[in-house]
Order: sequence, then structure tokens, then C-alpha cells
Amino acid sequence: MSTPLRLGIAGLGTVGIGVVKIVQMQADMLSRRSGRAVAISAVCASSRSKNRGVDISCYDWEDDPVALAHRADVDVVVELIGGEDGVAKALVEAALRNGKDVVTANKALLAHHGNELAQLAEENGRMLRFEAAVAGGIPVIKTLTEGLAGNRITRVMGVMNGTCNYILTRMESAGLSYDVVFEEARQLGYLEADPNLDVGGIDAGHKLSLLSAIAFGTKVDFDAVVLQGIRAISIDDIKLARDMGYSIKLLGVAQMTGRGLEQRMSPCLVPETHPLGQLQGGTNMVVIEGDSVGQIVLRGAGAGEGPTASAVMGDVLDIARGLQLPTFGQPAHTLVAAPTAVVSTGAPWYLRMVLLDKPGALAKIATILGECGVSIDRLRQYQHADTHAPVLIVTHKASSDDITLALERFEDSGVVVGDPMALRIEEV
Amino acid sequence: MSTPLRLGIAGLGTVGIGVVKIVQMQADMLSRRSGRAVAISAVCASSRSKNRGVDISCYDWEDDPVALAHRADVDVVVELIGGEDGVAKALVEAALRNGKDVVTANKALLAHHGNELAQLAEENGRMLRFEAAVAGGIPVIKTLTEGLAGNRITRVMGVMNGTCNYILTRMESAGLSYDVVFEEARQLGYLEADPNLDVGGIDAGHKLSLLSAIAFGTKVDFDAVVLQGIRAISIDDIKLARDMGYSIKLLGVAQMTGRGLEQRMSPCLVPETHPLGQLQGGTNMVVIEGDSVGQIVLRGAGAGEGPTASAVMGDVLDIARGLQLPTFGQPAHTLVAAPTAVVSTGAPWYLRMVLLDKPGALAKIATILGECGVSIDRLRQYQHADTHAPVLIVTHKASSDDITLALERFEDSGVVVGDPMALRIEEV
Repeated sequence: MSTPLRLGIAGLGTVGIGVVKIVQMQADMLSRRSGRAVAISAVCASSRSKNRGVDISCYDWEDDPVALAHRADVDVVVELIGGEDGVAKALVEAALRNGKDVVTANKALLAHHGNELAQLAEENGRMLRFEAAVAGGIPVIKTLTEGLAGNRITRVMGVMNGTCNYILTRMESAGLSYDVVFEEARQLGYLEADPNLDVGGIDAGHKLSLLSAIAFGTKVDFDAVVLQGIRAISIDDIKLARDMGYSIKLLGVAQMTGRGLEQRMSPCLVPETHPLGQLQGGTNMVVIEGDSVGQIVLRGAGAGEGPTASAVMGDVLDIARGLQLPTFGQPAHTLVAAPTAVVSTGAPWYLRMVLLDKPGALAKIATILGECGVSIDRLRQYQHADTHAPVLIVTHKASSDDITLALERFEDSGVVVGDPMALRIEEV
Repeated sequence: MSTPLRLGIAGLGTVGIGVVKIVQMQADMLSRRSGRAVAISAVCASSRSKNRGVDISCYDWEDDPVALAHRADVDVVVELIGGEDGVAKALVEAALRNGKDVVTANKALLAHHGNELAQLAEENGRMLRFEAAVAGGIPVIKTLTEGLAGNRITRVMGVMNGTCNYILTRMESAGLSYDVVFEEARQLGYLEADPNLDVGGIDAGHKLSLLSAIAFGTKVDFDAVVLQGIRAISIDDIKLARDMGYSIKLLGVAQMTGRGLEQRMSPCLVPETHPLGQLQGGTNMVVIEGDSVGQIVLRGAGAGEGPTASAVMGDVLDIARGLQLPTFGQPAHTLVAAPTAVVSTGAPWYLRMVLLDKPGALAKIATILGECGVSIDRLRQYQHADTHAPVLIVTHKASSDDITLALERFEDSGVVVGDPMALRIEEV
């Protein structure tokens, strides 16, 4: 048996404590599986005296996280502080420069600085691993980087923000409005301090940008992710979608097209018979499509102490076992800067709008769609008591450009009341 | 860039040709991802002249597969011959002894000789990898061995024989009998030469025994897998189960209990709302439960050229990247010989039987169940035209022993016609 692998853990929130528990309680199992004991040398968090339910008195304490990167008795820095800049970034950089491997759960950091950090890791011959940053306990980084490495990946999709999926499925099951369920989620502690990270799609967008880099061998390009949150989704949309056999999900989609790399994180309709459509509550799902393997679906808890700590420990044990792998599955300098696909791949669309109930209104809408090159698959006008007629249209395949153009022309048509809702129907 | 990793491929059936295609068509991608070129030095199959749709004239040809193990220009032997003994075993042993790594899709070989082969691999410092042997394209071996290595695994479940799942779901969707669908499957080429490998649960049992070893750190013990095939499942069972909200699946379950290791491959009822219950056709699914991660579900194609070749290439690229890992996730000598749990974990049961339509018949059955310690959750007696009354009982949790005892006493009761059907309801 070799020398122990010694961790320095920065951040003792839910995940950090989960990691400490596994190291303390599963010591024999970990060393049997990795061939080395896994030990903790030092920890660091905002408060030393807080009762965390585990004994951390046996570990050295550092007030400054970056000090962990300078300790001779630390082989791996586990960064669980979070945040795209500031101390988390300083710690990771210092650790790699000082010859430490790094395991992090920090999606924001990698979405914004992943390219430079991957480069820094390689220059120093160290590992930078981030399984816990994407889809919690689901080993999706490993699956994509290693298990499916023999595939040209054609598309990656995912429901990767449990809070948004909780809100959407709770709206449907309880028949409640977005605002009511949002408030519930806040009171349950499901929301980030800045809720826009969740419901604005930013958190899930960070994750998608990391999967894209591995899947397509491209530089991490979070700024190119088209972000659309779930705030505008109404209970009516959810019900109408369900009537037609679809569920609405905050769905991330990344694919390489002839026009460049397409990365979208937006509410989409998916068939209720597909595993994506059946996903309830805070559970996460990632769908990976490869030229050889076809479609692989991975499902599991996307957050929480145990699942996230499980992902961190998977990375730690890889390092203990001596795995050597570039951060994004191939050397950082070989990641290409792919052009961004401005127009997304064609798809059917769900269009919901309210029309003035006057002669020729529906004809006007149909004419505009036709002139924009959008053809109608299904159309339903719903019963109404007043002069406003709810209309639902499912189109045949159309580009996002054509849909945008049609929506602009609806605005000037004089027959559409308020803003129409347009949601992509992702073909799975 | 290092020297190329050179393969010797034994077996050029569907999977072998799939591997050749990936090596030929994705050369750049493979070397970018693994840091080495992947090359093929030599191949071997039963017929040299057969047209396989790919050019293999650029590779050396061996008539004897074992010769691949003796070639200086082969680093990795890819064994795709199959069969638990004979030439496949001779080849793998010779390869490991001669310092070659081995990648195999051979579940039967490993189910019967995995312990000795893992030992042999370690003695020679080589890798023996078998991702393609279990659940086709789903990287379940990697997920269990590496991604979830920080977990004490509590249960592994899987639908891992696509042919059986095709038969069961086709019976339901088309309302056809087992015999008719079995014949369909045979004509479609879905069945092994010996169909008992499929419908008798043997093939899936092989796979389960390999997952058990990794999950619980136990020696591979295929002989301890309780096997029950799907032949006795009638269209009535499928319909009655569905009426109560269940699907019938050939489900493998492995768990470590206080009484030893439990390994079962048998038709079970699972809730139709769980991903297992929703699995259609030839698709495979593996469910892994860990103390930290909770429940992880993996879904994908369980067979076919592309998916299986994808799994083989995942292993090949791991070797190219320099991964070092014991075959079953921990050194072979640390795998323990777990006692076999003779009585399986308690569960609710589905009992279907035909009773003579005479006074006191149902009371007799209910009394027997009570005396055997089995209590009734739901009971339905169906309408009938003759003197035979179909009865369906769902029990509360009961041990397999108590159910077996009750079935024996039914036989002597004088009121049960024919053989009752007893199926476990797996709680997921």
C-alpha cells in the first residue's frame, strides 16, 4: 500500500461535510478500492466554531483557504467555496501552481475560467476534476470524458437545475402559478441567494458549457450559451403542452452544426413518454447521443450532501488511483474556439397567443406564418367568454430565425393581444 | 505524442467490425482524446474471405486467435469470440501471461472464470476490462467501479437482456402470447443460438454476477444467482399486473444482506411509473443505489454493433490513457467469498391462481396464507363462465420462504387448479 492521499478541504458547507463523513466512515472501503488511504490534513471554512455534526478537531485549521495550497501535507485541494472569482479562483490557481491536484464542485468558476485553469493544470502536470459541478451525483463528466470517448458526440441534453424542475413539475401537479411555487421554493431553501442563477437558467447554463467542451472538443464558451429562464412559463402553458402529450422542461441542448456550436438553455417541450418528459421534482437527467452508442440517459439526484459528496469522492479516488486525464478530456491547447451557431437547428415550435375575436384574425396569423416560411402542424382555438380568443399552434420544423420574424410581425398585426409565447419542441 | 497503442482483434462479427470502423474512421479523435494513436496490428476470425463491409487487408491475419497473444506488435488483445471456455479463455490467459492488456465483451467467460482471470491480470500487471460485457453501450462498469467508488453500494438492479424485454413489452403492446412473440423474436434474429441463454435468464445472470462483484467487493459467484426465466409469463399476467399499476420485467437484483449476498435474476413486477417500468423493447437499464448518491439510473442500447463497439473502445482508450485498475475495482485477493443469502429479502408478492368455484375455496386459500405468515394486501376474484375462478392476490411483505411454503400447501389444498404464478414485486 502506498502513502495516503492527503486532502485539504476548503468549504465546510453541506458538500464539504458530506466529504468529511465519507472519508471518516468509509476509510477501509476507500483504501481497498484505490490502493491508498485517503486522509484529510487540513480544512478551512468561514466559521471554526460552528457545530457541523462531525468532528473536525483532528484536522488542522486554516483561516485563509489559499493557505491550503501551500501546505506540504496536502496532495489534493478540494475547493467547495463556490463563486466564479475571488478566493475560489485564487485557491485553485495557487494549488495547481504548487503542484496540488484540484477537485472542485464550482461550475461558475470553470464556466468562466475553465480554459485557463485547464491549461494551468496541464502546465503543472496536475489534475483538475469537477464531476460534482455538473448534475450532482450523476457521474456524467466521467461518462462523457471516458466511457463514451470512442464516440463522436452528436448532441448533449440535460435537465440540470433541480430547482427549476421542481418548480415546473410542482406547478403542474398542484395547478399553482409560477409566483406561488417560486415562493414555496424560496421558503424550502431550494433557491440560490440570487434566484436568477436558478430560474434565469444561469446555473444550468454553466453546466451545459462544461459538457459542451468535453463533447465537442471546444473551448468552454459560457457566453455563447443562449439563456432563457422559466419565469414566463404559465400554468396554462404547462396544461396545454400536456394536452398535446408534452412536458415543459428547462432543457439544455448542445450540438455541433454546420453553422457552428449551438448551446441553448431554455424551456422546451419534450414528449411526456421520453424519460426527460417523465422527470419529476429535483431529479436531474443528462442525455448523451453518440454516433456509435446511440442515446444514453443518466438520471439521479442533482444536489444535496450525499450525491454531491459522492461525485467529489469519485474524483478523489481517481486521483488516488493515479488517473491522468486532461480537464476536458483532451489537452487544453487542442480545444478549438468553435463559432457560435446564431440560428439554432430547426424544430417544431409551440406558439400560444391571444387573438382579438374579430373576423380575419386567425387568417392574418396563418398568413404571416406562411410568409415567414413556417407551416402549421396543429392549431387549436379555445372556447372563450370575452373578445379574446386563446389560440395554440404547433408548427412543423422551423428555424428560430423564422419564428422570431413571425413573432415580430404578430406584434404589428393588430390582432394579437399581449406577448405570444414561443417554445421549442425538442425532438428526442 | 507517445507510440501507438496496437490492438489484436479476435472475432470479426458485428462488434469486431464496429471496433474496426471506429478505429479507422475516428483516428484523429481517438488520438486527441487518449494522447496516443490507436492502431490495429492483426485480426483473426473464422473466415478470412467473408465480405464484412470494411477493408481489413491492411491488418495481419492470424488463423489461430491465440497467436495474437504472442505477437510483439500487439499491446491489447480484444477478445470478441465469446463462450465461457475454449479458445476465448485460452486467448485471454495467454494474452495476460504474455504481458498484453485484454478488453473483452465476454460475460460468460468472466462469470465463470472472472476471479482467476482477474488474479492472473494482476500477477502480470495487466488490465482486464469488460465494459462491453454488461448492458452494451451503457458505461455501467465504469460508473460502478469509478464514478460511484465513494459509495457503499446498497443494491444493484438491471434489465440487461434486451431480447427478454422485447418479448415482454411486445406481448403487452400487441396482446400476443409468449409463444407467438418468442417465434417472432427468433425470426428477427434476436435470440442466441441457444435461446435458453436469453429467456432462461442465464445471459442476464452472467452480467448480474459481474456487477455484484464490483458493487460488494465479493468474488464473482454466478452459481449463486437464483435464475428464473420468462417462459411461464402469460399475457394474462402482464395485463393483470398492468391493471394494478405494474410492469413485468426480467429484473436482476443484487444486494448484500445480513444473511449474505442475494443475487436474483427473475421476472418481477415494478411500478409502471418508475423508469424500470417504462422501459420498452430492447433497451437496457441499470439502477445503482449507494449510501451517499441515492439512486442512479442508466439507460441505453444493450446490444448491437455501435453500442457494444463504443463500450470496447471506452476500455481501449482507458488503456491508451494509462489507467491502472483491478478488474473488479479492488485487488482480486481482497474480494471476499460472501455466503449466499438463501432466503431473499422480504417483498410484496403477486400471486395468480385458478380456484375451483365451490364454497370455502377462497377461505381455504386465505387461511393457508395466514398460517404461512403471509398477509393479504389486495385480492380480486375475476368473473368467470365455468367452474374455474381466476383469483389475484397482492400480499404485504413476505419472505420467499413463506411464499414457497404457501405455494406447496396450495397444491395439497384441493381447491387450486394447475400451478399458481408467484412473482415478486420489487420495491424501487
